[in-house]
Amino acid sequence: MEIKYRPEELTKLPRSVEYREGKVYMINQRLLPREFKVEEFTTVEAVAEAIKNMTVRGAPAIGAAAAFGLALYAETSKAKTKDEFFDGFYRAYETLKNTRPTAVNLFWALNRIKKLVEEHREDSLDEIKRLIVEEAQKIADEDVEANLRMGHYGAEVLPEGNILTHCNAGSLATVHLGTVGAVVRVMHKEGTLKLLWLDETRPVLQGARLSAWEYSYDGLNVKLIADNAAAFVMQQGKVDAIIVGADRIVANGDFANKIGTYMLAVLAKEHGIPFFTVAPLSSIDMSLSSGKEIPIEERSPEEVLTCGGCRIAPDVPVYNPAFDVTPHKYLTGIITDRGVVWPPFKRNLKKLFETL
Amino acid sequence: MEIKYRPEELTKLPRSVEYREGKVYMINQRLLPREFKVEEFTTVEAVAEAIKNMTVRGAPAIGAAAAFGLALYAETSKAKTKDEFFDGFYRAYETLKNTRPTAVNLFWALNRIKKLVEEHREDSLDEIKRLIVEEAQKIADEDVEANLRMGHYGAEVLPEGNILTHCNAGSLATVHLGTVGAVVRVMHKEGTLKLLWLDETRPVLQGARLSAWEYSYDGLNVKLIADNAAAFVMQQGKVDAIIVGADRIVANGDFANKIGTYMLAVLAKEHGIPFFTVAPLSSIDMSLSSGKEIPIEERSPEEVLTCGGCRIAPDVPVYNPAFDVTPHKYLTGIITDRGVVWPPFKRNLKKLFETL
Repeated sequence: MEIKYRPEELTKLPRSVEYREGKVYMINQRLLPREFKVEEFTTVEAVAEAIKNMTVRGAPAIGAAAAFGLALYAETSKAKTKDEFFDGFYRAYETLKNTRPTAVNLFWALNRIKKLVEEHREDSLDEIKRLIVEEAQKIADEDVEANLRMGHYGAEVLPEGNILTHCNAGSLATVHLGTVGAVVRVMHKEGTLKLLWLDETRPVLQGARLSAWEYSYDGLNVKLIADNAAAFVMQQGKVDAIIVGADRIVANGDFANKIGTYMLAVLAKEHGIPFFTVAPLSSIDMSLSSGKEIPIEERSPEEVLTCGGCRIAPDVPVYNPAFDVTPHKYLTGIITDRGVVWPPFKRNLKKLFETL
Repeated sequence: MEIKYRPEELTKLPRSVEYREGKVYMINQRLLPREFKVEEFTTVEAVAEAIKNMTVRGAPAIGAAAAFGLALYAETSKAKTKDEFFDGFYRAYETLKNTRPTAVNLFWALNRIKKLVEEHREDSLDEIKRLIVEEAQKIADEDVEANLRMGHYGAEVLPEGNILTHCNAGSLATVHLGTVGAVVRVMHKEGTLKLLWLDETRPVLQGARLSAWEYSYDGLNVKLIADNAAAFVMQQGKVDAIIVGADRIVANGDFANKIGTYMLAVLAKEHGIPFFTVAPLSSIDMSLSSGKEIPIEERSPEEVLTCGGCRIAPDVPVYNPAFDVTPHKYLTGIITDRGVVWPPFKRNLKKLFETL
């Protein structure tokens, strides 16, 4: 695979999470599409709250935001002794960890920095601080590079035509470009993307609010549908492939992603439509053998009882799972930053990790 | 089948469409669930507008509303001659007919009155007026009676347990009780309904706004989900049967219903869950041989770009089909007011109509 395009050739958007001099900057995704605003965060608690309340969302963006939360701690800590610094570091680590239960990137990014710090425990405090900031920046840069690679790998295997995606695995969900976002942007650049179908993705409407905004911002040919219309569009032969992100992929290829993904997978199978997920290696959790072991976050009933801020339903009981698990048998291929993994997934994922 | 319960034993709701002395009364379903209000309509144009803008919705309720529109014309007409009266009658007929393209009951109800009027062309003007009003009332009463029968037939064949329904085919969608509404109310009365899953049914949210309101009003055990969660709930084994209404059933058993119905049908098949539709004979259109011939109404992009009155998406292109067509192969049975029709539907529907 040859990298043909740099990020700035593929999108006009800035990075969605950045860190400069003791401050974390994030696009506030709760305000989109009404308002495009980059907000400044100066405490670990504020960063944690932003992860929790979905100011920032999408597994890789959450990972980078958490890493930058630790960088922020390191650069703003007033600790006079190393012990004091480490106490604060572990508190920050816990605060950032206890925000979203499903996103494996969150734990992955936090643990990567924790491990580095523990390896350098004997270094000077200044050196440890420098290492944390550097490592957090590296996590962000690697995400962009990984997306760029996934974009090029994905564009090689997806058919030319109409692509359907779910939720937002775009630039806003990552540090830059997106996972699905990189694939459809490379396809757009190459002229192989005819139409990008976006389902609105209730209850939080990431498709209608975020994907519709960012892909039309970059000039892609999009069309928005209610989640209920996806099956009908497939029945009419208007979808050539489906591509979705993944919050966590496990060793056998089962994966957790935004609620509604499993529905699309079943519909894709019924209509003979290729169904791909795309995610960096950091979203693959080889410690779990099957999707049944993935904990599913249940979110507030308010998300279903309201829509875009409007109350829509009477006060009735609600079930609001945030994710579902798609069994690997529905999956055509897994697009990663190290190439496309084909079935049998259990064997081929194992092989991929062995060759790293 | 034995009728065990009368409408007033099954619901606390009033009829959703009524006619008294030159006025049509309808529950304004656009205001629900915020406000429960019966509105008065005094012109044919206002009744037509109410059908168009979904103040009244659901195939059988639309049929009754249109019939009452003609009754309203008849009782308020100032025509001095029969010719003048008939001119006005045909204008009213056309106005009411050109409101919603998919609902066969609308045409059925209007044509039933038109035919009667034409058969009695030689009668006195007063007699013709009386006949129109009487026939419109008969259409409404027959709907309630049909629902009562469907409710009892349906409760005999649906399994005990958790039932999932889509959109609103409840009392609000009919003159009284509903089609699906009658079935789940009889099940509730008999103690065989454990839980009624309601999907919210974007874009117009009939599930969240109307079904959640009317079924909780009547004390049923309901749980609301986003449309995206239905597949996950089925995967978890929490759905024992699915039952939906039908806007039009054709000769081979294919049927049109609210967008998203086809999706549920595919998901039911994948999970081995029985999938029923319930509709009166007046919703069965034996003149069409396959679902491919059913015209699909495409509605305004605004329905998708907004939700419950809130703007949710940027100004992007939208595809908003109001209905989809479910091929008969996904259907377990069709519950009608003359009993349950089982596969092969083409043969058994034909037989049913021959025995009438």
